Amino acid sequence: MKAVILTIGDEVLIGQVVNTNAAYLGKELFSIGIPAVKTVTLPDSEKEILKEFKTAYSNYDVIIVTGGLGPTHDDITKHCVAKFFKAKYVLDEKVLERVKKVFKRRNIPMPAVNIGQALVPDAGIALENKAGTAPGILIDKGGKVFCVMPGVPFEMKYISRTWLIPYLKKKYSKKLTRVIKQKTLHSIGIGESLLSVRIGDLGKIVRKGKGFEVKLAFLPSNYEVRLRITAMAGSIKTADDLIKKAVKKIISAAGGFIYSDNESSIEETVGRILKRRKLTISAAESCTGGLITSKLTDIPGSSDYVMDGIISYADSAKVRLLGVKSISIKKFGAVSRQVAEQMARGIRKRSKTDIGVSATGIAGPGGARKNKPVGLVWIGYSDKKITFAKDFIFTKDRLRNKDAMAKMALEVVRRRLLSINN
Amino acid sequence: MKAVILTIGDEVLIGQVVNTNAAYLGKELFSIGIPAVKTVTLPDSEKEILKEFKTAYSNYDVIIVTGGLGPTHDDITKHCVAKFFKAKYVLDEKVLERVKKVFKRRNIPMPAVNIGQALVPDAGIALENKAGTAPGILIDKGGKVFCVMPGVPFEMKYISRTWLIPYLKKKYSKKLTRVIKQKTLHSIGIGESLLSVRIGDLGKIVRKGKGFEVKLAFLPSNYEVRLRITAMAGSIKTADDLIKKAVKKIISAAGGFIYSDNESSIEETVGRILKRRKLTISAAESCTGGLITSKLTDIPGSSDYVMDGIISYADSAKVRLLGVKSISIKKFGAVSRQVAEQMARGIRKRSKTDIGVSATGIAGPGGARKNKPVGLVWIGYSDKKITFAKDFIFTKDRLRNKDAMAKMALEVVRRRLLSINN
Repeated sequence: MKAVILTIGDEVLIGQVVNTNAAYLGKELFSIGIPAVKTVTLPDSEKEILKEFKTAYSNYDVIIVTGGLGPTHDDITKHCVAKFFKAKYVLDEKVLERVKKVFKRRNIPMPAVNIGQALVPDAGIALENKAGTAPGILIDKGGKVFCVMPGVPFEMKYISRTWLIPYLKKKYSKKLTRVIKQKTLHSIGIGESLLSVRIGDLGKIVRKGKGFEVKLAFLPSNYEVRLRITAMAGSIKTADDLIKKAVKKIISAAGGFIYSDNESSIEETVGRILKRRKLTISAAESCTGGLITSKLTDIPGSSDYVMDGIISYADSAKVRLLGVKSISIKKFGAVSRQVAEQMARGIRKRSKTDIGVSATGIAGPGGARKNKPVGLVWIGYSDKKITFAKDFIFTKDRLRNKDAMAKMALEVVRRRLLSINN
Repeated sequence: MKAVILTIGDEVLIGQVVNTNAAYLGKELFSIGIPAVKTVTLPDSEKEILKEFKTAYSNYDVIIVTGGLGPTHDDITKHCVAKFFKAKYVLDEKVLERVKKVFKRRNIPMPAVNIGQALVPDAGIALENKAGTAPGILIDKGGKVFCVMPGVPFEMKYISRTWLIPYLKKKYSKKLTRVIKQKTLHSIGIGESLLSVRIGDLGKIVRKGKGFEVKLAFLPSNYEVRLRITAMAGSIKTADDLIKKAVKKIISAAGGFIYSDNESSIEETVGRILKRRKLTISAAESCTGGLITSKLTDIPGSSDYVMDGIISYADSAKVRLLGVKSISIKKFGAVSRQVAEQMARGIRKRSKTDIGVSATGIAGPGGARKNKPVGLVWIGYSDKKITFAKDFIFTKDRLRNKDAMAKMALEVVRRRLLSINN
């Protein structure tokens, strides 16, 4: 079972609209075991559309089209469908009623063009669209399913959820012998290639056998790497087992770097640990400018473990608000192990929290010193038992640095709380 | 001149990643008059990729490929390029140096797999990637341009901006007769429809004539509305003039709401005003959790006007760190005009800055009180002459609220500094 997704609309091609429909449908199709093996975006051109319909129809089992069903002149998708299937239009009374109702509710007389929306090519059936006026169209011919939906995301989603996906599940229930399961592991503070070195022989994880397959994908983004494990098998149980085995192998090899196996962010992960252990935290921030506490407070209920935070951007603020020794700043510089440790200890004591974390670094583009390049950050950590600091070097880009430095500060907390030494 | 964009990666097909690269490139290509007439997303499959390369190469002038250039086993794009062009690999010393440097910067030994990133098919040239390790590849053959870039958005953008787009402009300069110029105005704190009412007769702005056209698009996103003006004409000068005229009309009608006409963010705009007037600012944050100061410090050189900031998440912190009166919190609640004003005055005095700004609100999902719904925020402002607070209501979504509230706080500062009363 192979599907193709065709998106129609100039606005998508020229980047006025990001194609979220393809992503949504791709996910839905993948989850029921009919993966989209190709998506194509086309202009509002009859020639191009008909050409693509032909290719798609002869190569795939399921063809899904979105866009170009509106009432205006540039919406030609339905016209192309009728032409492609050599179909006549029939007026769908139910659809007409709906369209009329929509305008009635808005107290607007229905423009004549909208009657056209109730015309359906007799090759297929109309899929009711309670989220808008243009119905979807489903054509089931020669064992192939051809479905057209509006481009407006919430209308497309409504029709897909209500009609298309259930229809496909039912139709192909016997043929869908292959189950696909996925799991994504999140890591931070280690590069894609180093992580793969840590994991070691991928052959032990990436496997293909009779009726089953396990894939592993590395998805890097700003010093985070997501590891996506995909298992295909004949039954849900087998697929789940394959995933479990792969996860076990990865965790045993690089567990310390994996902060999440359930799509939760580092701030969510750290928040959960703090909540569970009834610990409180406060951050003293220089280069991150408040981003550490902002991330912590992105999580609902974070008021259980965050009471306040200090942004000490200027050296004087580090002294005044956190009790950092001026002499230390003079002697070692504001970006140093000593200052990071004093910041972490200072915020912990002044905020009376169990944990204090700090970040002092050079976000860039300016501010580099001898042996202190842009991207360098000292992360400080302090609790009742221990106070320490670690240095990391990230990029030359200010915003990416702030984000990576804030995440790394939270990762340092996580590793300490779980006694992980990488 | 016709272009096609090929995106490679299973993660895009199954909807784990939304294809923003195609949108970005579509916009860039459109702006230089080489519109993408088709975009295709392909799986990490040699067979599928080679098949599509063939089709693309025989139908379009410019073929742009993104994704699958990483160092790991599932990155096969470069291999397919070499195969398609029957090219041998040559080691690009410059690229190797860069890759080595990246690891050196981070004090990490370079894994062997990364050497592969310096191998370039001899059919083309390597495009230096200062944003990452994988270079782009450009092949100019038989009047056609074939360009491969990494899938990581900021790396792709770097290579496109630095190499691809300039190259295409130069190569096709004679053939490109239609000039397209765009300008985007940014507003915040006013709805799309209200803004259009303010602007008035759009017919005076949106025009079409012999050889020229002016379009206006309203692009709303989380309480910001971007007004994108597009001018098409035969010469750069004409297009620029058309844009200038349209901008003038909009500014004269709704100027107070427009904080930027040069893609600069609200934090950049406010920063520029503060710098010009040699003013300093500090923020006292509750619901925004540090995001106001984080945004302010997103701007290079912000240390000229930001020294520190306080995050007073808990009521006790508002009293201890900002001198808010407990009685005011008891009497009016933490989310109130009185507390917002005391927070703004408190931070201004304690930080000894010219301006103090504050935000206290209900980010959600919990925390709503009688007459105090989720999304409500009181923004406080204080300088030597005046202290006041304004309330706004945003959404039910926590993260969107934090972002909108932080931006609105900066907009309140901007309007005050420019004596704008909307």
